[in-house]
Amino acid sequence: MPHNYRLKLKEKKINLATDLKKVELEPLNDSTEGKDQPLPAALEPGKALGFALVGLGTLTLAEILPAFASCKYAKPVALVSGDPVKAGKIASQYGIASKNIYDYKNFDAIKNNPEIDIVYIVLPNSMHEEFTIRAANAGKHVLCEKPMATSSAEATRMIDACEKAAKKLMIAYRIQYEPNNKLAMKWTRGSEFGKVRVIEAMNCQNIANSGQWRLKKELAGGGSLPDIGLYCLNTSRYLLGSEPEQVIASTISTPGDSRFKEVEEAVFFQMHFPGGVVANCSTSYGIHQSRRYRCYGDNGGWFGLDPAFAYKGLKMEVSKMVDDVEWRSNPAPGEKNQFALEMDHMARCVIEDKKPFTPGEEGLQDHKIMEALYQSAREGKPVKISGNPTGIDVFRGTLPE
Amino acid sequence: MPHNYRLKLKEKKINLATDLKKVELEPLNDSTEGKDQPLPAALEPGKALGFALVGLGTLTLAEILPAFASCKYAKPVALVSGDPVKAGKIASQYGIASKNIYDYKNFDAIKNNPEIDIVYIVLPNSMHEEFTIRAANAGKHVLCEKPMATSSAEATRMIDACEKAAKKLMIAYRIQYEPNNKLAMKWTRGSEFGKVRVIEAMNCQNIANSGQWRLKKELAGGGSLPDIGLYCLNTSRYLLGSEPEQVIASTISTPGDSRFKEVEEAVFFQMHFPGGVVANCSTSYGIHQSRRYRCYGDNGGWFGLDPAFAYKGLKMEVSKMVDDVEWRSNPAPGEKNQFALEMDHMARCVIEDKKPFTPGEEGLQDHKIMEALYQSAREGKPVKISGNPTGIDVFRGTLPE
Amino acid sequence: MPHNYRLKLKEKKINLATDLKKVELEPLNDSTEGKDQPLPAALEPGKALGFALVGLGTLTLAEILPAFASCKYAKPVALVSGDPVKAGKIASQYGIASKNIYDYKNFDAIKNNPEIDIVYIVLPNSMHEEFTIRAANAGKHVLCEKPMATSSAEATRMIDACEKAAKKLMIAYRIQYEPNNKLAMKWTRGSEFGKVRVIEAMNCQNIANSGQWRLKKELAGGGSLPDIGLYCLNTSRYLLGSEPEQVIASTISTPGDSRFKEVEEAVFFQMHFPGGVVANCSTSYGIHQSRRYRCYGDNGGWFGLDPAFAYKGLKMEVSKMVDDVEWRSNPAPGEKNQFALEMDHMARCVIEDKKPFTPGEEGLQDHKIMEALYQSAREGKPVKISGNPTGIDVFRGTLPE
Amino acid sequence: MPHNYRLKLKEKKINLATDLKKVELEPLNDSTEGKDQPLPAALEPGKALGFALVGLGTLTLAEILPAFASCKYAKPVALVSGDPVKAGKIASQYGIASKNIYDYKNFDAIKNNPEIDIVYIVLPNSMHEEFTIRAANAGKHVLCEKPMATSSAEATRMIDACEKAAKKLMIAYRIQYEPNNKLAMKWTRGSEFGKVRVIEAMNCQNIANSGQWRLKKELAGGGSLPDIGLYCLNTSRYLLGSEPEQVIASTISTPGDSRFKEVEEAVFFQMHFPGGVVANCSTSYGIHQSRRYRCYGDNGGWFGLDPAFAYKGLKMEVSKMVDDVEWRSNPAPGEKNQFALEMDHMARCVIEDKKPFTPGEEGLQDHKIMEALYQSAREGKPVKISGNPTGIDVFRGTLPE
Repeated sequence: MPHNYRLKLKEKKINLATDLKKVELEPLNDSTEGKDQPLPAALEPGKALGFALVGLGTLTLAEILPAFASCKYAKPVALVSGDPVKAGKIASQYGIASKNIYDYKNFDAIKNNPEIDIVYIVLPNSMHEEFTIRAANAGKHVLCEKPMATSSAEATRMIDACEKAAKKLMIAYRIQYEPNNKLAMKWTRGSEFGKVRVIEAMNCQNIANSGQWRLKKELAGGGSLPDIGLYCLNTSRYLLGSEPEQVIASTISTPGDSRFKEVEEAVFFQMHFPGGVVANCSTSYGIHQSRRYRCYGDNGGWFGLDPAFAYKGLKMEVSKMVDDVEWRSNPAPGEKNQFALEMDHMARCVIEDKKPFTPGEEGLQDHKIMEALYQSAREGKPVKISGNPTGIDVFRGTLPE
Repeated sequence: MPHNYRLKLKEKKINLATDLKKVELEPLNDSTEGKDQPLPAALEPGKALGFALVGLGTLTLAEILPAFASCKYAKPVALVSGDPVKAGKIASQYGIASKNIYDYKNFDAIKNNPEIDIVYIVLPNSMHEEFTIRAANAGKHVLCEKPMATSSAEATRMIDACEKAAKKLMIAYRIQYEPNNKLAMKWTRGSEFGKVRVIEAMNCQNIANSGQWRLKKELAGGGSLPDIGLYCLNTSRYLLGSEPEQVIASTISTPGDSRFKEVEEAVFFQMHFPGGVVANCSTSYGIHQSRRYRCYGDNGGWFGLDPAFAYKGLKMEVSKMVDDVEWRSNPAPGEKNQFALEMDHMARCVIEDKKPFTPGEEGLQDHKIMEALYQSAREGKPVKISGNPTGIDVFRGTLPE
Repeated sequence: MPHNYRLKLKEKKINLATDLKKVELEPLNDSTEGKDQPLPAALEPGKALGFALVGLGTLTLAEILPAFASCKYAKPVALVSGDPVKAGKIASQYGIASKNIYDYKNFDAIKNNPEIDIVYIVLPNSMHEEFTIRAANAGKHVLCEKPMATSSAEATRMIDACEKAAKKLMIAYRIQYEPNNKLAMKWTRGSEFGKVRVIEAMNCQNIANSGQWRLKKELAGGGSLPDIGLYCLNTSRYLLGSEPEQVIASTISTPGDSRFKEVEEAVFFQMHFPGGVVANCSTSYGIHQSRRYRCYGDNGGWFGLDPAFAYKGLKMEVSKMVDDVEWRSNPAPGEKNQFALEMDHMARCVIEDKKPFTPGEEGLQDHKIMEALYQSAREGKPVKISGNPTGIDVFRGTLPE
Repeated sequence: MPHNYRLKLKEKKINLATDLKKVELEPLNDSTEGKDQPLPAALEPGKALGFALVGLGTLTLAEILPAFASCKYAKPVALVSGDPVKAGKIASQYGIASKNIYDYKNFDAIKNNPEIDIVYIVLPNSMHEEFTIRAANAGKHVLCEKPMATSSAEATRMIDACEKAAKKLMIAYRIQYEPNNKLAMKWTRGSEFGKVRVIEAMNCQNIANSGQWRLKKELAGGGSLPDIGLYCLNTSRYLLGSEPEQVIASTISTPGDSRFKEVEEAVFFQMHFPGGVVANCSTSYGIHQSRRYRCYGDNGGWFGLDPAFAYKGLKMEVSKMVDDVEWRSNPAPGEKNQFALEMDHMARCVIEDKKPFTPGEEGLQDHKIMEALYQSAREGKPVKISGNPTGIDVFRGTLPE
């Protein structure tokens, strides 16, 4: 009984039709140059939904906090950190009141803070469950970084807790909200390139041997797979809209590389989707960064991104036969701040009381598949994924506009 | 006697060494992946310098106002517009107090508003002189959009007024503050590619026939040249650091194109620099957008940007012979918000009492050269530019860090 | 009275409809991959027309002689050189009879050699006139390298001599026979990109200080302009199909560069075509190689080649707005040996008694324009080109298939 | 006892040091532009080794026969075909004597034809064994297209027959002789990019449903794997110089696609090399063409080709961190005719009595690995490859110059 969303609308008096500060100006350029992007329009600060950021690591500081400047519906209002000095610096930089700084112990006190609408969890993976449940119990909606947790069991408990508390739960799969990837998704499911029969995906980077939690099994749940390989996995599912029936995987760590004592360096995996469609994927923590995917159609073309998965600088690449001539192209549907798109979607789902496009169930499914991948690697055989509902986007909610 | 700058530091108690909210975290990636960008660090809002934006057209709304989110030293505090409804919308969107909204008549009242440190003029070219002088007389520093004015006479009066008022005057040549262009400037003046003997530059777009001021001689001062061709002109000077000795130009308007009754569609021009170096440039309002330049060295390489001059999406391209193999490359020194870099430079010049890198003198020189270009086109002969001081960067101030 | 062509057909019994050794095989790939190129088909060696190559420099040895392997209608049968040792080596390599080696003195004896149908002149520019006239007088058709001569006066005499002898005269403008450039020409004259209003063209390279004839005024007739700048000039005319009405140029040589004592290093020039269309061009002997052009339309797109003008490795680049998205593309209409295309065109014109697409008149027109460019640079003013017939392709012959 | 090679040298009096028709000319361009390619130099036709082409399909007609024009040591002297009309057309086009046309029955008569030194087998895979053995028994050296056969058993018999006849046997792995791939091989084994830990490789195209032999199990031995997937397999081995220890594969055919009744559409496979290095590969007959590979190093860079494997138009791509800036580059080490390089290598091995770089053993090893891949797919488990000798390039012969 999500009465609180209506309350939110009522309290803040948000009227999406009238509250966006839309301004239109005459075009500078001829229509041959393409339509101008709409001018930035946002709720006034007093009406935007308030986010509490839990965890002040690189992602929060370098990407998420700056991204609020590009949001229409969201603003940062609170910080949660174990380091009060750092939190104080960041709060003053972003104009966040010092009373809105929490630590991991007094976190539950957010329930008394009406400025906070949504909690964005940006912690080591093993802490996602605890803070999601505590946030939901404090009456707040939750946006949780990927991977959702370190196991499907944890993910299930997170979904249950949010359902019980009647709070939204969204996993931060920013790729699914981004214009280039949305165009690739449209093409994958459409007919411009025929039927997509094969997807190639790669996500790799050379990780620092700095004692970071990503290299600790207990904190991260795995190595390259849940951190970066997950993009290959999740994006393939997103593009196709369907679910894999069977997977094959192997894991590799270079002998003698001290970074990979607890977690794997690399995973090479195939996901077999209905109708003979295969995604062949590679992920590694041990090589120079490369982030890419390509979707191969059977009607004279393929398309993809290289780089894909990066925070910015995405680049589409297309091959298409036109009148017996191959055109290699880079269409540029525009770059938008991916974190802003994702946070705005979460905020709108709260305002309009809708299920996020990437809800907890989307994250849970990835954990089930990752567990199948590890099993396949361990046992040296293909592993079936069973029990998926039939249909398209079966684990997803409301399509973002 | 610029006592006021010190006053600013005293009043706001800005100490650049300690007030930037710097945070450092352990690296996520191995050093083979390149150094991480420093985490965003900015003055707290209470200490950042306050900007008044004069003119609420597309540039202000789509680029400048959002750019403040990426500034370290600057924030928007006031708006000046002839349209109070629009100004009200924008003010509420950016959390600007409604008392800080001015119109063109009561603009001079800003002198009584201590929140405003700097006035950023984003008006039609013919209004630049008036508002620069009024701002300086109101005791404010001035950042003025390019082109500086509609004539060198106006530009000279603007410089004089600001000098008399002991206020900084900077022209908004964002290109000169941007990392890709800075790298190109370093290469132009260095030896990696030998001596640069030729620069090719092009800036064009297909302008809308919307009655906009850019097509009115009295308001714009000219057509494609002062608006977009200026980038070819100013960037060539910036790259080389020297000044042209002679120019040749022709202007063209397509017969029957109703947009170009008052101003020229296109200008094709050569600038001859000392030592036989030539910049060959093209600008047009009548064709599909293309923004690029290339600098040709005499030692096995060239480099440039395509796109260049755009607000974002700049891309360097390099050709270099290495061991008898030609490498075509795209180095990516990183994308930063160009308006934020420019506004931060202005703010720092005020805080530290330094001359901007692109002061009024830089804008005045461009007007002198544009006047020579129009004269050359009119008279059908080369025109000499005389009276330049000798040296490098003779019209520029303090190099940005 | 071109009775000889029919004689050729009669003697050799060439029947183009039946003599090409056409073979068709089933396609390997689905039609979605584009039509297969037709399989190579050529006249048998006994029927192909025989070429005598005059001049055994780099162009002949590195490009022209190997190109015959890709010809359908042409074969090399004789060599003319001042160096009998070199000529002997080359003749044995290509299976040319030693009796078919001539020198510059006994050249006229080719009139008694029925194996020779066509003379291809690949000599320093100042020798083109003499050998064209001697070849025509020996009863042979002439294919002459560009630039046609060192002056329009020489070019005129060459045309007259071939007309008098009733022999074909073709200038070797290989660009006009090449698939990428042909597609660009089609687009320039079509509507896909709107009306082309501006062409940018650049051709440059860093020439060796080796005492070569290209740096000697008397032998070359000029510097970078007639050698490489000519590509910008001729290709602009080819793309548009029309003729410039006025030109503006300046010439530059870097002070102290010992290569440019007799001829100019660089020329920067504008050609103004009817309807306000401008080609802005640059050519230089003093900088790293860059060969490119772009044609700018007024309907949301531009196209061009980079590299252009090179012997191989041409690459088309296109920008086009599609549904408000800019696509940067590289269509690949296929690479063919440019010299083979050009020599085959010449051979077919002889076989079918047709006027070459790039006859002597095409070369003469370029000399008239180059003379106007040098005059403009010398006198510091625009120079008009008058007396052109009206129409499209007014100096060109039969369109190649 | 390879006495015959010396005989060849003796009979033809080939002296490689003096017989190549080398000519050197002064450079046209400054050394900053890179060294000029050496001018074409070849044995005179009378000394070049004679090739008999067995099979006149698309590969022979479109690629191999034209390639002889770029050979230094090889020429076509005989054709073997079941279609005398086609053979006659081709023979006359290439100046091959009609007496040198054979069919599959009288093929063994080549033993009496001293013009034929080498037999190049370009037949359906299942015919490779028979014609290799018949050619060896006729006293001729054999160059055989890839895949070598349809099984390792056939491949073994081919090696044995050639050894017994003391004839050279080379498999036509053109990739291993090509400049771009050779540079990639050098980098893979060198230190510029660190240690290569991962290779991604893809080779696919959409095959015609034309009843061609490639879709028949008995003739082809398999589907996409032996035809095009073999490039991923063989090139990975070539780049690394080592041999896989274990493989994992799955095969896929789209349900209902009538082309894939006998052979597989697609194979997705991993090859695990010593030291934790993995090649993750994809091949398909059912999607738009894409041919690429990338080699990922652990020291700030990767490199590869896209397109790779194609007959022409190969393009290298490199990513490298330089001073914290990522450079994406396309080095162009030059394009050469791959078939000419391969045929010249074979000819030189005969002239100099050396083992080919890609001898029969190289082809046999690929068949062993393909058999392991099919076994892995069939049995759903990893399959070990055992019994490889230790060392680098263990199955390869003399490195081409």
